[in-house]
Amino acid sequence: MKLKNYGEYNLINKILGWLSADSLYKKRVIVAPGDDAAVINSPDKQLVFTTDLLFEDVHFCLSWADSLISRPALFEALGYKSLAINLSDLSSMGCKSEPIYCLIGVGLPDSRVEIEDINSFYKGLKKFCKKYKVFILGGDTNSSDKLTIAITMFGATGTNGKIIRRSGAKPGDKIYVTGPLGDSAGGLDILLKGKKTDKKTADYLIKKHLYPPVRINEAQTIAKYATSMIDCSDGLANSIGLICAMSKTGAKINLDTIPVSSPLKRYSGSPIDFALYGGEDYELIFTSKKSMPKYRCIGTVENKNSGIKYYQNGKEIQIKKEKLYQHFK
Amino acid sequence: MKLKNYGEYNLINKILGWLSADSLYKKRVIVAPGDDAAVINSPDKQLVFTTDLLFEDVHFCLSWADSLISRPALFEALGYKSLAINLSDLSSMGCKSEPIYCLIGVGLPDSRVEIEDINSFYKGLKKFCKKYKVFILGGDTNSSDKLTIAITMFGATGTNGKIIRRSGAKPGDKIYVTGPLGDSAGGLDILLKGKKTDKKTADYLIKKHLYPPVRINEAQTIAKYATSMIDCSDGLANSIGLICAMSKTGAKINLDTIPVSSPLKRYSGSPIDFALYGGEDYELIFTSKKSMPKYRCIGTVENKNSGIKYYQNGKEIQIKKEKLYQHFK
Repeated sequence: MKLKNYGEYNLINKILGWLSADSLYKKRVIVAPGDDAAVINSPDKQLVFTTDLLFEDVHFCLSWADSLISRPALFEALGYKSLAINLSDLSSMGCKSEPIYCLIGVGLPDSRVEIEDINSFYKGLKKFCKKYKVFILGGDTNSSDKLTIAITMFGATGTNGKIIRRSGAKPGDKIYVTGPLGDSAGGLDILLKGKKTDKKTADYLIKKHLYPPVRINEAQTIAKYATSMIDCSDGLANSIGLICAMSKTGAKINLDTIPVSSPLKRYSGSPIDFALYGGEDYELIFTSKKSMPKYRCIGTVENKNSGIKYYQNGKEIQIKKEKLYQHFK
Repeated sequence: MKLKNYGEYNLINKILGWLSADSLYKKRVIVAPGDDAAVINSPDKQLVFTTDLLFEDVHFCLSWADSLISRPALFEALGYKSLAINLSDLSSMGCKSEPIYCLIGVGLPDSRVEIEDINSFYKGLKKFCKKYKVFILGGDTNSSDKLTIAITMFGATGTNGKIIRRSGAKPGDKIYVTGPLGDSAGGLDILLKGKKTDKKTADYLIKKHLYPPVRINEAQTIAKYATSMIDCSDGLANSIGLICAMSKTGAKINLDTIPVSSPLKRYSGSPIDFALYGGEDYELIFTSKKSMPKYRCIGTVENKNSGIKYYQNGKEIQIKKEKLYQHFK
């Protein structure tokens, strides 16, 4: 059967089924595949692991280097972003902010990528490593048809080894988000479609796409109170769906409370659609019993049989299922 | 500058230069990029990491699935081999044989790879994990143009935290190899060129290419006595060159003592060329002051100013530099 007919979530579930766990595995691996990162037991501490693959023409295009962004700036951003999305996964598990380690695999199309490009890419990696105190442990370089970036990153669990999973939300919890949503998808839209907007707006949104926020420091405080957490990588609707599925709950989301930036409002008449379906914002979505006034409350966790409902201007609206992000479509 | 003009080793050295190390890095990272795997310090033990990328049409071809190997068997072999080459890296560092953990990233061309293929691939992964007690911690699946496999694997250092580096060879040490060389390159030759040979020979050599040996158990004993070690992934000449470069020594290799299999001799009139230049054998090459009669001695470590010399039938022969394996050529 073709993957596009099979679907990503079916595939992942299939893979999880293949990885049937024995008792030793269960003893050693605290969080197994299926969350943002894996956690293993070590006598003195627990380590949290994540890995992400970025492919040219799937996750980014070298043709984006044009009037809006120079080629060196694009490669530098790719280095930065490839680490940012991994650290975001660790953040959403409540991982300690240091030490963080990573391994970097790159597949290089030798006819199209030059040494200067790789220099820029490593400049971005190093900028990120310096900012977030990440150590590069090693890697692998190879020839490949398309530019490919494979990152594995890990760190230690936070205070008292507390791990925040996707599955801990309880009815009555409030749902929070750490920052504006939709900007990254707006930036991607500009890069892909070259849609005209003023330079300031374009620069802001493209920058949000290429330099996503990393909430590792905020996550340290949030982790003390969060019952569940996820990083918003495939759009808000997807993130809420995953938390509810893993926690076996429903949710009520008030779209009027979702933070969207002024540039996104200037760029699009329907910024909420970018927030709901866009993806790659990498803000944290978390649930908490305790009030967290520092972050924007966007809804509440409900009983499973209430389902997941979205409201706008007091009226229920339906999620456009066909717009939900799916790999292999 | 184009990568093919720049060369792989220049590129890797460039990258190593970019990863300039501060004192904290040096305290935490015991073996930094540039060896088979990285080693970090942890209060209770040291962990050893490695990562490898495999690309369709660079490391393997789906068109190999034909009369010699079925499509399910090819995908199963890819799963097995992608883990084997990583565990080989850990073996050559003297890593403990368990526990071993890994993360698996796969990029899937959805128009050409079907769910049955992925099932076979995971069957191979699981077969390997069961045989070598490896735990899969998680991974990432994505859509990509070419089938891509990105593995990260790690384990703990062996008894007393001893790590075997490439750099410890001393003049006077003997050079050993754990098994026959060249078979894998012979198998690849058959897969690529479809060159005719009897079925038994073809099956043996192809199997050596797709199911490389993993010397993790032998490595436990070897590590007690080895002064340096490397896994033979890019041909013997390359491996010897790397050990000598890192150890700042020369070497004298007696080609008449290099173990080559009967099937390889049947397949080729110059089996030694496959051993010297072929690659992907994944036997361990190590040096030791102590005599190791269990393994084949193929030469001695010499002073740096003696250079690296190869002898056949008592006469010095010259290495064909243009045949040495280089990525990005």
